[in-house]
Amino acid sequence: MMTYIGSMTLCLLLFLLIMCGSVCHGGKLLVFPGEGSHWVNMDILIKALHSQGHTITVVRTTKSWYIKDESSYYSSITITVTDAMDEEFVKPIIKNVIDIQRGTSSVINIIHSQIKMFSALSQVHKYACDLATAVLKDKDLIKTLKENQYDLVLTDPAWGTGILVAHYLQLPLVYNVQWAISGEGHLTIAPSPMSYIPMTLSGHSDKMTFTERVKNMLLYLLFTVRDRLTLRPHYQAVCDEFFQPGVDFYELLQGADLWLMRVDFVFEFPRPTMPNVIYMGGFQCNPAKPLPQELEEFFHSSGEHGVIIMSLGTFVTEFPHDLADVIAAAFAQLPQKVIWRHKGDRPATLGNNTLLVDWMPQNDLLGHPKTRLFVAHGGTNGVQEAIYHGIPVVGLPLFFDQYDNLLRLKERGGAKLLSMATVDKNNNFLEALQEVLDEPSYRMNMQRLSRLHRDVPMEPLDTALFWIEFVMRHKGAAHLRTESNKMPWYSYHSVDVVLILLGVVSVLILLPVAIVRYLCFRKCLKRKMKSE
Amino acid sequence: MMTYIGSMTLCLLLFLLIMCGSVCHGGKLLVFPGEGSHWVNMDILIKALHSQGHTITVVRTTKSWYIKDESSYYSSITITVTDAMDEEFVKPIIKNVIDIQRGTSSVINIIHSQIKMFSALSQVHKYACDLATAVLKDKDLIKTLKENQYDLVLTDPAWGTGILVAHYLQLPLVYNVQWAISGEGHLTIAPSPMSYIPMTLSGHSDKMTFTERVKNMLLYLLFTVRDRLTLRPHYQAVCDEFFQPGVDFYELLQGADLWLMRVDFVFEFPRPTMPNVIYMGGFQCNPAKPLPQELEEFFHSSGEHGVIIMSLGTFVTEFPHDLADVIAAAFAQLPQKVIWRHKGDRPATLGNNTLLVDWMPQNDLLGHPKTRLFVAHGGTNGVQEAIYHGIPVVGLPLFFDQYDNLLRLKERGGAKLLSMATVDKNNNFLEALQEVLDEPSYRMNMQRLSRLHRDVPMEPLDTALFWIEFVMRHKGAAHLRTESNKMPWYSYHSVDVVLILLGVVSVLILLPVAIVRYLCFRKCLKRKMKSE
Repeated sequence: MMTYIGSMTLCLLLFLLIMCGSVCHGGKLLVFPGEGSHWVNMDILIKALHSQGHTITVVRTTKSWYIKDESSYYSSITITVTDAMDEEFVKPIIKNVIDIQRGTSSVINIIHSQIKMFSALSQVHKYACDLATAVLKDKDLIKTLKENQYDLVLTDPAWGTGILVAHYLQLPLVYNVQWAISGEGHLTIAPSPMSYIPMTLSGHSDKMTFTERVKNMLLYLLFTVRDRLTLRPHYQAVCDEFFQPGVDFYELLQGADLWLMRVDFVFEFPRPTMPNVIYMGGFQCNPAKPLPQELEEFFHSSGEHGVIIMSLGTFVTEFPHDLADVIAAAFAQLPQKVIWRHKGDRPATLGNNTLLVDWMPQNDLLGHPKTRLFVAHGGTNGVQEAIYHGIPVVGLPLFFDQYDNLLRLKERGGAKLLSMATVDKNNNFLEALQEVLDEPSYRMNMQRLSRLHRDVPMEPLDTALFWIEFVMRHKGAAHLRTESNKMPWYSYHSVDVVLILLGVVSVLILLPVAIVRYLCFRKCLKRKMKSE
Repeated sequence: MMTYIGSMTLCLLLFLLIMCGSVCHGGKLLVFPGEGSHWVNMDILIKALHSQGHTITVVRTTKSWYIKDESSYYSSITITVTDAMDEEFVKPIIKNVIDIQRGTSSVINIIHSQIKMFSALSQVHKYACDLATAVLKDKDLIKTLKENQYDLVLTDPAWGTGILVAHYLQLPLVYNVQWAISGEGHLTIAPSPMSYIPMTLSGHSDKMTFTERVKNMLLYLLFTVRDRLTLRPHYQAVCDEFFQPGVDFYELLQGADLWLMRVDFVFEFPRPTMPNVIYMGGFQCNPAKPLPQELEEFFHSSGEHGVIIMSLGTFVTEFPHDLADVIAAAFAQLPQKVIWRHKGDRPATLGNNTLLVDWMPQNDLLGHPKTRLFVAHGGTNGVQEAIYHGIPVVGLPLFFDQYDNLLRLKERGGAKLLSMATVDKNNNFLEALQEVLDEPSYRMNMQRLSRLHRDVPMEPLDTALFWIEFVMRHKGAAHLRTESNKMPWYSYHSVDVVLILLGVVSVLILLPVAIVRYLCFRKCLKRKMKSE
């Protein structure tokens, strides 16, 4: 009974603390969000922070894509830039990737595209550094930022602008993170044995064959080299220009106070982590709200067969016509109703059971009791929502981490994956839909993941808010952060110690051998001289 | 506002869940506790589990020390053993250690004692295995245990009995842990770079000089060798006798579902961890309850100077007379009042300001507003209570992890450490007391640690209960547990992959060289033959 009372008292105290915090001690946050779909996540976090009484300033550019300059829950600072990773920058890259995935490119084209992708990534980080330089050079802006006395910088470390500015302003740093500059976030902060941690984009699970482990190691080496040669130099140049000598960008990247990870271990394979990594996977998910009447009627009309939801995310605005036709034709053969978020022309083969929409309340649709299946591209948000609502998935991964995301569902028996290269062949798509609809294990596995995901002592969003406010209250979280990133790599990995120990052991073994050989040699020499 | 309502709804749901759990779905736990001071912690956890409506069965022996066979909150199974790690086994070891610490032993004695300590540790684990064998051989008992349908086994992995029985019964396994068989718990489950993770008993912090890193590595090798040669064979023998061929004890040890660690990162240096490690450091601490009138009057009589608390823990029943005299004399010179938990004869130099007690409500004393200082041996419980109540410490470490525990407070500026060898020299003890009393930084640092420790989203004990019940609800926590422990060491560390890659690189470099040399050789040979 003591603990009931204890936990209720705690809850009440926490509630009062939050209430009090929101009224009297609202903090000030300076936010450097990511562009594109990364903003979707950050926006949710910012809204929640605002509702707790905190004041948020978002730094955006004149080329910002989704990030509006006016909002009811944040104010913004707009930096003028001539170039940036905007929608026009991303469109041709995505078209390229889809062509490669579908195998409609020649080998020369594929190599050319891969080189272009590498160079585009480097360009993205160059833009991030240009933005940091623009901020740091603007004396009036820096003065304002200093006067504002922010409590912390919140940023998405897929780009490094916020990290550089936070160091300049000497502010605590909190990440809203799944990717950090060049790869999955954990790779930067936690020990990651390549024997069972699949590299980003490797397409491996945490159980690898020997060949897969070799491939994984090679991918790790490739990422490391790419990182050192093409990405870090941009950021290091900013460090060298604006900071004391000896400030290493990678140390700054690793040195954030808190890593709010957009995953949890229902989604991610279990792996080593660090004390300052807080898991908030699925923080964007909510119980479904009632649907607009039109959609509700559509759901109702599906009867016992239920509804399939299809969306390929925010990036894919134009989908290849022939592929759209194949997909529409497959849907037309099913007894289910289908809601398809589709922006291109109306496919010729579209059935009466399929409703095309420009936008959809995805979370509410997935949470509807009649939803049977989710056809998804594997973006983090969609995958997390599928887990939250326990809906099985047919995955059509396109690029970036989408295959890796969907693989995590597949490994748990909750999804079937199709590649873009074969989706339009031999009724592949239709068969995949039918298999996931008819085989109960897919649904049962997703429902199990949903139960595990929801069984937490505190909701992910509340956890994130608690820890952000923790950093504000204590002006950082130094006690949760190792300083091992300040060691040179050979010390961190004990290479120096091992070499010294091996040296000592060698001397201890070889010295007596050498002495014995020398003595023998002298004896022989003497004997020889005598005999002569 | 949404999140307030969200968090309150969650609290209420949690409360109802706990209430409901306690009334209708009480679980069944089979507990294999540790002996000695390890029982103190387990007892608190068991009491809390009982108060949540769970049924607890504790396995003890006829030689059990503190673990009573009758209790209002658990039932017990008593195994008859002829030998065990009981109080008589431990007493001479502790006397030995104190003699060594004080430097009153000769070098030969010290070496002899160290060998005895090694052998005693091996003996302790032999006893644990004998106990496991006794349980597994008792067919009636095993039948009863199976019929009882326990939900999980809860054990302290400083001993391995519970691990073996849990595997036999195929039950989920939860640890209440700080030590695992031979060293600090994390060393068994999480990656631990020896460059900044101080080995158990090393006396190092997480910032080491090169020499310290060499010593740390040597200590790691020593522990590993000791572990493989003297401890694991006992357990492996039980595995070989009772389990399928190929069952490796170390795999079972690493394979627990949940590690409830009796530390947090206010106490422990930041370091890599794993998803199934849950931190419950300080779960035994509570706000101070009012003192008995006699003690309260004693506190009141201390006026503005306040009170010093001294206790050297449960193990040290007899304290060297001469040392007790030095300590009593130092206390007598202070304006503070002193409460000293002392079991030996009354020291001749005892001042009027010092009250000797047989036992004390330590947590309540430390939580009294007039308490100024805690003289402690560095047991985990005392150190955690000092952190919880923010009381600075003068440390007199005796053995095991006590120096390491106190070092963690010292590194944060909250404690001063004395060695047993010098505590009675040059007024060392008195000066240490005065320094910690007079220098405000000690108190301020402990108060800061206290604030950090208490600022958590959920109380440590409630966190522990939540996760134990989580394992019951989901019949384990496989999704939080890596299976990397099942890999051979050379695969885990990618030694095979690195060797293959080096081999391939070597061939790629050496093959052309060899071919060129061969061609040159042939050419030379031909030329030579021609010229001949």
